[in-house]
Amino acid sequence: MFHIDWASWKKLAPEARQAAAKEFSTLLAGWEHSAAYSLLGHKGDLLLLHFRPSFADLDRTQHQLAQTTLHDFLRPSNSYLSVVELGLYESSAKTYGALAQQGIEPGTAEWDAGVREVVDRQSRAMSQRLYPAIPDARYLCFYPMDRKRGEQVNWYTEPMNSRQQMMHEHGMIGRRYADQVRQIITGSIGFDDWEWGVDLFADDPLVFKKLIYEMRFDRVSAIYALFGPFFLGQRIPAASIEAWLAGQSV
Amino acid sequence: MFHIDWASWKKLAPEARQAAAKEFSTLLAGWEHSAAYSLLGHKGDLLLLHFRPSFADLDRTQHQLAQTTLHDFLRPSNSYLSVVELGLYESSAKTYGALAQQGIEPGTAEWDAGVREVVDRQSRAMSQRLYPAIPDARYLCFYPMDRKRGEQVNWYTEPMNSRQQMMHEHGMIGRRYADQVRQIITGSIGFDDWEWGVDLFADDPLVFKKLIYEMRFDRVSAIYALFGPFFLGQRIPAASIEAWLAGQSV
Amino acid sequence: MFHIDWASWKKLAPEARQAAAKEFSTLLAGWEHSAAYSLLGHKGDLLLLHFRPSFADLDRTQHQLAQTTLHDFLRPSNSYLSVVELGLYESSAKTYGALAQQGIEPGTAEWDAGVREVVDRQSRAMSQRLYPAIPDARYLCFYPMDRKRGEQVNWYTEPMNSRQQMMHEHGMIGRRYADQVRQIITGSIGFDDWEWGVDLFADDPLVFKKLIYEMRFDRVSAIYALFGPFFLGQRIPAASIEAWLAGQSV
Amino acid sequence: MFHIDWASWKKLAPEARQAAAKEFSTLLAGWEHSAAYSLLGHKGDLLLLHFRPSFADLDRTQHQLAQTTLHDFLRPSNSYLSVVELGLYESSAKTYGALAQQGIEPGTAEWDAGVREVVDRQSRAMSQRLYPAIPDARYLCFYPMDRKRGEQVNWYTEPMNSRQQMMHEHGMIGRRYADQVRQIITGSIGFDDWEWGVDLFADDPLVFKKLIYEMRFDRVSAIYALFGPFFLGQRIPAASIEAWLAGQSV
Amino acid sequence: MFHIDWASWKKLAPEARQAAAKEFSTLLAGWEHSAAYSLLGHKGDLLLLHFRPSFADLDRTQHQLAQTTLHDFLRPSNSYLSVVELGLYESSAKTYGALAQQGIEPGTAEWDAGVREVVDRQSRAMSQRLYPAIPDARYLCFYPMDRKRGEQVNWYTEPMNSRQQMMHEHGMIGRRYADQVRQIITGSIGFDDWEWGVDLFADDPLVFKKLIYEMRFDRVSAIYALFGPFFLGQRIPAASIEAWLAGQSV
Repeated sequence: MFHIDWASWKKLAPEARQAAAKEFSTLLAGWEHSAAYSLLGHKGDLLLLHFRPSFADLDRTQHQLAQTTLHDFLRPSNSYLSVVELGLYESSAKTYGALAQQGIEPGTAEWDAGVREVVDRQSRAMSQRLYPAIPDARYLCFYPMDRKRGEQVNWYTEPMNSRQQMMHEHGMIGRRYADQVRQIITGSIGFDDWEWGVDLFADDPLVFKKLIYEMRFDRVSAIYALFGPFFLGQRIPAASIEAWLAGQSV
Repeated sequence: MFHIDWASWKKLAPEARQAAAKEFSTLLAGWEHSAAYSLLGHKGDLLLLHFRPSFADLDRTQHQLAQTTLHDFLRPSNSYLSVVELGLYESSAKTYGALAQQGIEPGTAEWDAGVREVVDRQSRAMSQRLYPAIPDARYLCFYPMDRKRGEQVNWYTEPMNSRQQMMHEHGMIGRRYADQVRQIITGSIGFDDWEWGVDLFADDPLVFKKLIYEMRFDRVSAIYALFGPFFLGQRIPAASIEAWLAGQSV
Repeated sequence: MFHIDWASWKKLAPEARQAAAKEFSTLLAGWEHSAAYSLLGHKGDLLLLHFRPSFADLDRTQHQLAQTTLHDFLRPSNSYLSVVELGLYESSAKTYGALAQQGIEPGTAEWDAGVREVVDRQSRAMSQRLYPAIPDARYLCFYPMDRKRGEQVNWYTEPMNSRQQMMHEHGMIGRRYADQVRQIITGSIGFDDWEWGVDLFADDPLVFKKLIYEMRFDRVSAIYALFGPFFLGQRIPAASIEAWLAGQSV
Repeated sequence: MFHIDWASWKKLAPEARQAAAKEFSTLLAGWEHSAAYSLLGHKGDLLLLHFRPSFADLDRTQHQLAQTTLHDFLRPSNSYLSVVELGLYESSAKTYGALAQQGIEPGTAEWDAGVREVVDRQSRAMSQRLYPAIPDARYLCFYPMDRKRGEQVNWYTEPMNSRQQMMHEHGMIGRRYADQVRQIITGSIGFDDWEWGVDLFADDPLVFKKLIYEMRFDRVSAIYALFGPFFLGQRIPAASIEAWLAGQSV
Repeated sequence: MFHIDWASWKKLAPEARQAAAKEFSTLLAGWEHSAAYSLLGHKGDLLLLHFRPSFADLDRTQHQLAQTTLHDFLRPSNSYLSVVELGLYESSAKTYGALAQQGIEPGTAEWDAGVREVVDRQSRAMSQRLYPAIPDARYLCFYPMDRKRGEQVNWYTEPMNSRQQMMHEHGMIGRRYADQVRQIITGSIGFDDWEWGVDLFADDPLVFKKLIYEMRFDRVSAIYALFGPFFLGQRIPAASIEAWLAGQSV
């Protein structure tokens, strides 16, 4: 996310400004799986969302952007680094049950191999969900979150089946909104300051509020969720980015 | 909210400064449901309040402002994005009671349809309260807030009727101040970093303090409220904005 | 509170600098109930304290300052907005007792009228304490504070007579220091980010530490006080402000 | 860690920019045990990691860097100061047991001498682990952490053998990842704002997430760990630093 | 503490830079009880430590520094204002015991007079410890701290004799390190944002870590200590300050 130094940008000679806007829009068009959003409020003006198969690709994207003329007028204000993640609580429970039924003990090499085999099989089957395209919706809502590790209330000391049950309830709410909101959950343990990132995509931004408010009363959110800052962006269509940079509303 | 870079602004040639002030005052006059306030203290100099029917309109307003000359002298310091919200605890309780009396079970499709039908009917009836004009009062007090989700004290695990009762008590205090303070409550779950935004409008700013102090002892505020930063602004009449930007007190 | 951009200020031509210092000192001298302090440490260089009868007057003062040449070299670092407040726990207790003795019930219109009548009478009697002059002492200690609203320890759910008793004990310590420290307590609920502001004035700054340390062990401070940042300033006599801005110690 | 002021850097004449890049790459090549990483996200662009035998050497390194031309385009954003530390919980337990068997009492001069003798012997034996080379892996994950000292949950009041057992469990997870992740633990009590710094090195950055997620459920992490910000960097080979500074992806 | 704007400083003409360095080193040499340290990490480059008999002297020192040419290249990043304090828990206990034995009651004027008389006598006796010289050691470790006032764990509600006993244990650890580390404890209640400042001086910086780690397990630190940021500086000998400012390591 970036602030745009509008004052300096507007001082640029019109041709130079057009050339810089063109350079950026060409770069953006050439990137597969990147999108631009106009941010509401003071947290930034422009949000760039990049889906990439590897961190090396992300690093390259970031470095390419830094070399553009437009970048000289951008002031980085925020960022979030994470990888797409699938909710595996339900399938994990099934896997663990099946292994236990075969008399395999948790913690043994056999158990680990069994788990790994299932996870790999699932990952292949779900690779489309692991490498999604950016949904076309007009609005983006992004926020990072943690599970609470308090002195009495601690997600990480809850037993697996209790966590699984709470995640199941939680997922049921999301499913009821599935036709209005597309969610992409990413994991960021080891990569950024929160444990997960939540990306919601919808054409009607009010639905973000309804969904998150309803979820706030389910057990896992009410008791265990810690929320970071919220960001709300309006998609700038690739074809309109030059007009937008020229000050036209799109 | 913005700091004004007074040093640079004052260095501008008088005609350029006048033209910029004129450009801004014309824009402000043309915006329906926008108002300007002079902020007290170091959190900013100018607060712009925009009521808009949609986020697309807000985004357009923000983008228009960024293209003005005055904007080159503004340093964004804060913002808050939210939607006007009506306290529905009391009517919800009635709706739920009525549905239950008809033998409809919570969680069924019938129940959901019943709730939705009532909410929609109310929203239509209350659209005037949902799309209010900006009150004319001389002072504005704004602050965001959350309901506490602590390890022992957690609003979101309190039963509905207990929450409703506390909101009722809370509302009674507000009602006693209704002739002195106009309140507009906005919801920001999914939009900004706190759950609600509170806008208070009054001609005598001391009333803000009396109202909020008295409320601090009611149960919902004493036990469950978390307060963000407070902002206090004095309305700059549209007709005086150019004089104010020229350094005259208004 | 302001940082002074000494580097730019010193680069100003001597006559321009003198003129700017003169302009500011004239403004300061013309303001009734304003004082300047040299801040110790990195939180700022200059603290301006303004006592005004209304927020409109404060806003005017702030706007006047922004138009001075000196202001172009000031970088606002902090501020605090509040109103002088009298500790009314003791007199309130007496009022409530007297009304109860007359058989008037709390919550009735009669009770409210009785309370209001007493408060108004007291306010008139104490208007001198409500509109104090700035004490002449050489040092100022300022800090904002809150009363704790924790999950187990919550000032706002304590019964009135318990709060009154704790405030009484607390006040007794302050009284023992009355000849060495002048305190002015201000309320800022609804105006700024903490609930109260404490201004202490003394010629010997060590007394601030003795007083606050001793108070830290009384019940209301030990259990319920939350302290914000502390600011320590040394008075710059109005007659010396130009010399001080010219780099002379005063 | 540093932000690079790319806008100013790119404005530098090509020869001056090349000379500055050369000056820096020569300095970097001359430093033993320093490495450069490209940071992902807005927390910085360049991370320099320095392993040095003493703080005096670190201070010299820092001072040398400040004198380069490249440094004029670097904006320090973060840093972490710590010393490599070996997990001695297991060997300490053995030492204490052996001393106790000899009938030596804790707290006596004899006990202290016994402990010191063992620690010194181990330090000599482990000096290679105390003065490691920077691993060659492509990715670096760095984060600082504390052990919790809460009101009920407090690492520092846990008995030694309980802490030792938890550290043993914790270490077992790390060992299972030993062929994929190299960890270097550093201590920073007295040097920086957290108690420990964790440096993880791997060719596949996803392994960081797997390792840390798995650890989050072991007792010492679930209950006692407090995590600071996470930083993720991609190694810039020494031979590529000039190309990278010229805007080429490497 | 200050960041040095090395880029601008290096752009200064060599003679001007030498003159500015000379001006500063002359000022520093003329100040009794001031010392300069090179800070490790990004929290600043230069730390100036001033011991002064009064706040008026400190204010003068600060104002003098602001008038130097070097100051135009310094960016204040931090500061700490406090007064040297002697641990009086043990002697207080003796005093209180003695007064009690004479049958004097706490809270009476006689008791207060007795306490004051002892404190004054001690202060005179210990004035050398109250006005220390800056130790000559090569490294400085500084951090501020508070005593915890939590909802269950609260230093300020612990009885005097329990606090005294914990401080005694705590002091015993410090004494064992007395030949390696010199500590100067300062009090800052009413002056700065933490209650105490701790200055440690040693030639071997590893000793800071050993001492503080060992102390972390004593009761007063484990349960009641809250630590602020840590700062680590390497002394710049007065004779080397000009060389250091010229970019030479010292």
